[in-house]
Amino acid sequence: MTGERLKSPIVPTVPFDRDGKHHGFLRLPYSRNESAWGAIMIPITVIRNGDGPTALLTGANHGDEYEGPIALQVLSHEIAPDEIRGRIIIVPYMNYPAFRSATRVSSVDGMNLNRSFPGRADGSATQKIAHFFEEVLVPMADVVLDYHSGGKTLDFLPFACAHHLEAQGQQEACVAAVRAFNAPFSLMLREIDAVGMYDTSVEAHGKVFVTTELGGGGTATARSAQIAIRGARNVLIHAGILDEEIDVAPSVMLDMPGDDCYHFATTEGLIQPMVDLGETVRRGDLLARVWPADQTGVAPHDCTAQRDGLLAARHFPGLIQMGDCLAVVASVLE
Amino acid sequence: MTGERLKSPIVPTVPFDRDGKHHGFLRLPYSRNESAWGAIMIPITVIRNGDGPTALLTGANHGDEYEGPIALQVLSHEIAPDEIRGRIIIVPYMNYPAFRSATRVSSVDGMNLNRSFPGRADGSATQKIAHFFEEVLVPMADVVLDYHSGGKTLDFLPFACAHHLEAQGQQEACVAAVRAFNAPFSLMLREIDAVGMYDTSVEAHGKVFVTTELGGGGTATARSAQIAIRGARNVLIHAGILDEEIDVAPSVMLDMPGDDCYHFATTEGLIQPMVDLGETVRRGDLLARVWPADQTGVAPHDCTAQRDGLLAARHFPGLIQMGDCLAVVASVLE
Amino acid sequence: MTGERLKSPIVPTVPFDRDGKHHGFLRLPYSRNESAWGAIMIPITVIRNGDGPTALLTGANHGDEYEGPIALQVLSHEIAPDEIRGRIIIVPYMNYPAFRSATRVSSVDGMNLNRSFPGRADGSATQKIAHFFEEVLVPMADVVLDYHSGGKTLDFLPFACAHHLEAQGQQEACVAAVRAFNAPFSLMLREIDAVGMYDTSVEAHGKVFVTTELGGGGTATARSAQIAIRGARNVLIHAGILDEEIDVAPSVMLDMPGDDCYHFATTEGLIQPMVDLGETVRRGDLLARVWPADQTGVAPHDCTAQRDGLLAARHFPGLIQMGDCLAVVASVLE
Amino acid sequence: MTGERLKSPIVPTVPFDRDGKHHGFLRLPYSRNESAWGAIMIPITVIRNGDGPTALLTGANHGDEYEGPIALQVLSHEIAPDEIRGRIIIVPYMNYPAFRSATRVSSVDGMNLNRSFPGRADGSATQKIAHFFEEVLVPMADVVLDYHSGGKTLDFLPFACAHHLEAQGQQEACVAAVRAFNAPFSLMLREIDAVGMYDTSVEAHGKVFVTTELGGGGTATARSAQIAIRGARNVLIHAGILDEEIDVAPSVMLDMPGDDCYHFATTEGLIQPMVDLGETVRRGDLLARVWPADQTGVAPHDCTAQRDGLLAARHFPGLIQMGDCLAVVASVLE
Amino acid sequence: MTGERLKSPIVPTVPFDRDGKHHGFLRLPYSRNESAWGAIMIPITVIRNGDGPTALLTGANHGDEYEGPIALQVLSHEIAPDEIRGRIIIVPYMNYPAFRSATRVSSVDGMNLNRSFPGRADGSATQKIAHFFEEVLVPMADVVLDYHSGGKTLDFLPFACAHHLEAQGQQEACVAAVRAFNAPFSLMLREIDAVGMYDTSVEAHGKVFVTTELGGGGTATARSAQIAIRGARNVLIHAGILDEEIDVAPSVMLDMPGDDCYHFATTEGLIQPMVDLGETVRRGDLLARVWPADQTGVAPHDCTAQRDGLLAARHFPGLIQMGDCLAVVASVLE
Amino acid sequence: MTGERLKSPIVPTVPFDRDGKHHGFLRLPYSRNESAWGAIMIPITVIRNGDGPTALLTGANHGDEYEGPIALQVLSHEIAPDEIRGRIIIVPYMNYPAFRSATRVSSVDGMNLNRSFPGRADGSATQKIAHFFEEVLVPMADVVLDYHSGGKTLDFLPFACAHHLEAQGQQEACVAAVRAFNAPFSLMLREIDAVGMYDTSVEAHGKVFVTTELGGGGTATARSAQIAIRGARNVLIHAGILDEEIDVAPSVMLDMPGDDCYHFATTEGLIQPMVDLGETVRRGDLLARVWPADQTGVAPHDCTAQRDGLLAARHFPGLIQMGDCLAVVASVLE
Repeated sequence: MTGERLKSPIVPTVPFDRDGKHHGFLRLPYSRNESAWGAIMIPITVIRNGDGPTALLTGANHGDEYEGPIALQVLSHEIAPDEIRGRIIIVPYMNYPAFRSATRVSSVDGMNLNRSFPGRADGSATQKIAHFFEEVLVPMADVVLDYHSGGKTLDFLPFACAHHLEAQGQQEACVAAVRAFNAPFSLMLREIDAVGMYDTSVEAHGKVFVTTELGGGGTATARSAQIAIRGARNVLIHAGILDEEIDVAPSVMLDMPGDDCYHFATTEGLIQPMVDLGETVRRGDLLARVWPADQTGVAPHDCTAQRDGLLAARHFPGLIQMGDCLAVVASVLE
Repeated sequence: MTGERLKSPIVPTVPFDRDGKHHGFLRLPYSRNESAWGAIMIPITVIRNGDGPTALLTGANHGDEYEGPIALQVLSHEIAPDEIRGRIIIVPYMNYPAFRSATRVSSVDGMNLNRSFPGRADGSATQKIAHFFEEVLVPMADVVLDYHSGGKTLDFLPFACAHHLEAQGQQEACVAAVRAFNAPFSLMLREIDAVGMYDTSVEAHGKVFVTTELGGGGTATARSAQIAIRGARNVLIHAGILDEEIDVAPSVMLDMPGDDCYHFATTEGLIQPMVDLGETVRRGDLLARVWPADQTGVAPHDCTAQRDGLLAARHFPGLIQMGDCLAVVASVLE
Repeated sequence: MTGERLKSPIVPTVPFDRDGKHHGFLRLPYSRNESAWGAIMIPITVIRNGDGPTALLTGANHGDEYEGPIALQVLSHEIAPDEIRGRIIIVPYMNYPAFRSATRVSSVDGMNLNRSFPGRADGSATQKIAHFFEEVLVPMADVVLDYHSGGKTLDFLPFACAHHLEAQGQQEACVAAVRAFNAPFSLMLREIDAVGMYDTSVEAHGKVFVTTELGGGGTATARSAQIAIRGARNVLIHAGILDEEIDVAPSVMLDMPGDDCYHFATTEGLIQPMVDLGETVRRGDLLARVWPADQTGVAPHDCTAQRDGLLAARHFPGLIQMGDCLAVVASVLE
Repeated sequence: MTGERLKSPIVPTVPFDRDGKHHGFLRLPYSRNESAWGAIMIPITVIRNGDGPTALLTGANHGDEYEGPIALQVLSHEIAPDEIRGRIIIVPYMNYPAFRSATRVSSVDGMNLNRSFPGRADGSATQKIAHFFEEVLVPMADVVLDYHSGGKTLDFLPFACAHHLEAQGQQEACVAAVRAFNAPFSLMLREIDAVGMYDTSVEAHGKVFVTTELGGGGTATARSAQIAIRGARNVLIHAGILDEEIDVAPSVMLDMPGDDCYHFATTEGLIQPMVDLGETVRRGDLLARVWPADQTGVAPHDCTAQRDGLLAARHFPGLIQMGDCLAVVASVLE
Repeated sequence: MTGERLKSPIVPTVPFDRDGKHHGFLRLPYSRNESAWGAIMIPITVIRNGDGPTALLTGANHGDEYEGPIALQVLSHEIAPDEIRGRIIIVPYMNYPAFRSATRVSSVDGMNLNRSFPGRADGSATQKIAHFFEEVLVPMADVVLDYHSGGKTLDFLPFACAHHLEAQGQQEACVAAVRAFNAPFSLMLREIDAVGMYDTSVEAHGKVFVTTELGGGGTATARSAQIAIRGARNVLIHAGILDEEIDVAPSVMLDMPGDDCYHFATTEGLIQPMVDLGETVRRGDLLARVWPADQTGVAPHDCTAQRDGLLAARHFPGLIQMGDCLAVVASVLE
Repeated sequence: MTGERLKSPIVPTVPFDRDGKHHGFLRLPYSRNESAWGAIMIPITVIRNGDGPTALLTGANHGDEYEGPIALQVLSHEIAPDEIRGRIIIVPYMNYPAFRSATRVSSVDGMNLNRSFPGRADGSATQKIAHFFEEVLVPMADVVLDYHSGGKTLDFLPFACAHHLEAQGQQEACVAAVRAFNAPFSLMLREIDAVGMYDTSVEAHGKVFVTTELGGGGTATARSAQIAIRGARNVLIHAGILDEEIDVAPSVMLDMPGDDCYHFATTEGLIQPMVDLGETVRRGDLLARVWPADQTGVAPHDCTAQRDGLLAARHFPGLIQMGDCLAVVASVLE
């Protein structure tokens, strides 16, 4: 009804406007069977040094994606206030209940934070988190970096990406920030189903926005963690907050121009992958075979490439259900 | 009491002594709330062509390990009876309830099949499966190949391995079969806690036994699946069942000589890996850092290498509990 | 808020306007812990032969009711395009997640599809299904047949039924279609609590609507399945889509005129039925006794008929809770 | 180890050797999270009038079978001590935790009471119940009647049955008691897998034993309850405990001579029954079709009769899993 | 949408306007997997004797608080119609599903009834209960008494309380009723987060409202039950419904003037309480220590008093989570 | 079978024979779905100063009892090696999985540690813990103190107790240690059902054994924690390990001589306590009333005292099940 106008029940235990480095929590009161007067305590770090731009950095929007949380713990630990100009707000475990249960969606209300924006002050825990970002944190920011990876069920080539936006200037600023992030791959996306996304919410505030997919499987590697750390530092330098030289390496520009990039399973079963991430395929090549999970003696279902390109994403678990996305084939632009 | 002497309730729907290729099931009656007269139907393929040696090939001893099931579906599909001499018994999903639920242990009784040998004819479903292998299938075999990978919670460099055995001749036969498998890495293991293992049971029957660890994370890749397929064909050739030339490539010999190979987490938290699988480390190098999962502003716990070597295995999920194995550092022998 | 104006995220994989018989799916994207880019795949068949009326046939609105799904698989399999004029849209498993879990309500969001209309494009899975029928499928139809049975917890005499409607012409058309269905029993209903029902939604679109209760207990019999198959064919003939002779048998007209038809349990316990479905009772006759589930030595609670009539429905499970409907006694009109 | 020699922890609150009718409990101490000093209270009635034979009557050996519990509550309520000679021990809810949760096996330890004999005094709750019957109640009895029905997942024609026994005299006494029970159908069974059954245990004590299958689906009807009540009274008369005239009606003698009586599902899916219980079939007749639960457009799997006979049992739920018993075809002997 | 205007589906089985004592139920239809035509039956007693004021008395707003339910069963049993003037409406188990599962929030929809006002006629079960009170019961009342205690996770000194209200006259009437209740302690509260509370709803209707906290831990004692019984009788006398003398004893007036009354856990662990309820503390005194739950050898976290006062409430379970309220220190006013 | 002879898989990370204070873990390997190479890490502290007697102190044998864990964390923290002579082995969270889940029995295997002795080296986690105490820790000890309280479902007057033993000398030593513990109450117990208890196991080793019940409800108070701390110090002084003066206060000697001390609930419902812990009752006094949990208008079941004495224990939760222990009335001996 008028829930959106209510004030957030979330109380930060750190100041946003005081110089120095402050570690604390976003305290979200959460009454439940296990604790009548309990709370969800979302860790937050604010680093500030005088006036200047504000960067808002978030990880674990989905709770089973780890490159963001790792990079943000490292940055929160390493960056000293006197290295910066302006402000860095770091929330490494954005959907904290999902992060603690190592699941994509919240263990507390079953909701996907990245489909819960703009949230509700009187909603469930996930909706309250969305609402607080929408009303309090995003408005403070100039540039927003939200880390994603494939989580437990997808695996991606490491890329940063920006969205096609109607505001030309904003889009150009976003692309520049994506290039600064300088992941091994970069991507322009046109979201089809953008309702409820954090991305959409941040962009609607007119902010510069960078998002990523940096790996997957519910794990991180030394390499993927390093990409995440380096990318964030680069974005902070690009934004004028960190005063260093951007560390630039080549980045391959990808495109996912049409529906035929996405390959869906037409049966359930056991996946035999025929191509690995980053390998090149031609239209008609075998991407994977799906064997029955309940018998032998039956031929597999073949999944063949619908287009030329490079395997950019894949279903991660060994078993697959009908309708799951089995593989994504992207085009190489540069 | 005398449960071990009881006859197995499991009934195979395929013949073991008839030439040709037979696909069917091991029918394990399983009365439960959802089906009073139900059964667990474990797929099996028997390929036979006259007299000759018998190979018993098994996957999904742990239900979240996929290289074995993939290779065995491929072999069961591809190998024609007239290509072989003797007999191949293929059980791609050995702990079928675990495989269907994509979990290490059985979803039906919570038991680890690889700690349930020699099993019980009047026990739980997992114990009945163990008992049937112990009493019926293993005695038929000359060579036994049991596939493992790291499952959802561990990741391994791909290796095949044999155990140190008291019977010198048996050990040599096992090592020869491991070399025939020809995984990128090979390993000799001295199991500390071998009670209840399928390995121990097969070896106690005096059989030639090969086991593997071919990857992990609850997924397979095109590369790891290929290692599994090629390895089994090589073992079948080595055993004189398939009449082809063994496909030989270099294999690095590893050793895990002592307890100091194993690195355990001394705190729970978020893992920042500092080294990836296959990379070389020196004693004292940082293997990983563990960050607190509930706050920022606290230094990480460092996990450093207790010995020189190569990172051969690692904890896979992004979060870790105290006492979990975080990393295994192996020595390179050849 | 304005969720209802959003476009449905459901994508059909079959054409609605091409002649022939097309089997496919309503693809409902469903991101969850188990599959970040997964989907709910609702089977659908469209049979079309030129212009003419459209019939929309649905089963498993509640997931534990089987006559509809059986009849619709049979029709989808048997009817050839050249047997018909116009179009038949068949969705045998309307609330697919509920059907797969064999439960009345959805296993995915716990919602009762038949209380979820008009649905929401940005709601939960069940709400999205309702919304797609409301916005896309029902508008295409001229006549709508939605199968119900008692499910796991109720058992009914087999009847088809129409509702009392304010639009006299529409009601007459519905009654004619019910008579065409020609179940052993027929019924006119005045729904008390019609909020959120598919029935209400279809009728509000001005369509001819037939619904049924054809048995129950979470099973079907050869007889009840046959009633369902024959009834649908009769409705299609009646609608001018199938060009055959209607198969007419006697149908007993029932009425449930007042609240005294419904008999509720006033205590929990073990039911001893004293009358079976279809038997005649007089006011005051013993319908059932309820014995305590926790002791012997205590007299049962008697449930006696509040009116003359015939036992038309009953609680199915052996145990009952206070407040459950124990029995329905209907009047015979013809 | 020597658990079987331990004294049962179960304490009856009723006397077994005092004249009159006594209602009480078998008190089984059960310490658990919800009650450190709690107990399972199994209702029991003992009716005694001087010396004479003892009948032990039990229901809910499986917790979702209702004819036995109903009949035993009725008898426990109606029979007065002065109507009998000797003793009747009535336990209407033998596996009480299973009965309360309306499930086949115990909700407390997941065990099937009818596969738990001879039980253990220091085992789980179900094992303790088995042990108490084995050691205390069965030894008191001359004739034992244990009611079964199909439960939630099977449906049977109503029959009483005896087993083929090695002791000729005992078998004849059992058959005579089965004929006295006088269900609509009667059956001689040769149990294949009799390990752990109550039946086996009772027969090993040399007692006269009658068991039944009186319906199924997790419900009872007025008719099936009446068969159960009348059958028990007849057995008590036959045993010389009740002094009345046996109520005799025709009973059809069935036989299930071979494995081909049992028809198992070879695929999972939605069952379309083609024959109902009690109907006659010829070898090759269609018993049921199984349609896919996840798509349309695919032909069903046909299940045809493997022999002539009469449909004596069937899978009850609308969906079926591979390996489930779909139908039992029995021969008619008389 | 316009859900708030819909008529409640709840049907009372007792009259509100007939003299005498009537025991019955609020029948809330509740269709679910376990019972398609089931209901939630909320016990209610109405006692009436001619015209006069109406008191509405409720317990188990939270399902794990017992003083209210006990007192209301006692009053419902003991009070005869001719002892009173006017009407008493007693609902001892307001959130009946929560009460039956002994949990704070509803076991049926997971909702906190005391945050669900004003409810919805077409909402979940808890919302329907709130709606019925909002629309039907509260409007009938002149004085409303709603019992609370700490539930399973908090423990309180026994107090009754009123809220600071804008309407001066109403506030005075509430305070007078609180004094009449005459618990050992009394309190004035300024609710910070009053959205969705029953309190707020009742006060918005302009009614005289008394609420309490009378103990906790998910239990009641003879003493706390007696306080509850006596308090309600006193309120009824005060309201002119019971014609007796008020039983007056001293009551200590408490105040919780600021945020520093509330002490939250800053770490998870095992609580060592250093002060018990009712004991006096000085600012800086140790209230409790929190020891690590996963190791020895680490110093505890100390929680010291932020102000002088008396320990008025505490976390009850032995373990605590970060963010839980550990202790409340109140000031003594009189 | 011969499982008991196997060596324990548990590995301590602390030395038992080195002087000083050592904090570490009993590492119990625990392979499971969530961690293939995981472990249960049970905290342990060993304090040693030269030769002398060994005391073994344990808490959380049941996981929801807190006085023991608190006292043992305090002692483990406070006692310096040079204060003692001999050795103190402290295991504050004996059944660690139960302690972490705050439940009586293990969350890992559902077993009650205090009914699992002598355990099994190849059993479940709880059996392995029992086996390690049986084989390794108890043999090291001279005096053993095992703390208990009522847990979440019982509440006790605080007492220490010894058992009647056949060995007169051992019994006298135990009584002396109980008197040294000096709880407000002391008790001699004759365990009826001692099979599988730690107590029985320790006593069978011929050790001096003290156990306690110090409160309950799943909480501790400042007072009960203090009793636990003081009692352990007194026992250590008494054993000659701590060199201090025993702190002696009066202790009331209780007796529970017969079955009539125990009062069981004969119905389920809501408890109205009429007497509090420590209050004196006469035979026939009302101890509690049990009101129905599903209706009003029905008289309560009264539970009256079966003997004179003092209320020593009671059921804690507000609701009770049939068969639960409602109250224990003890006699006062001194």
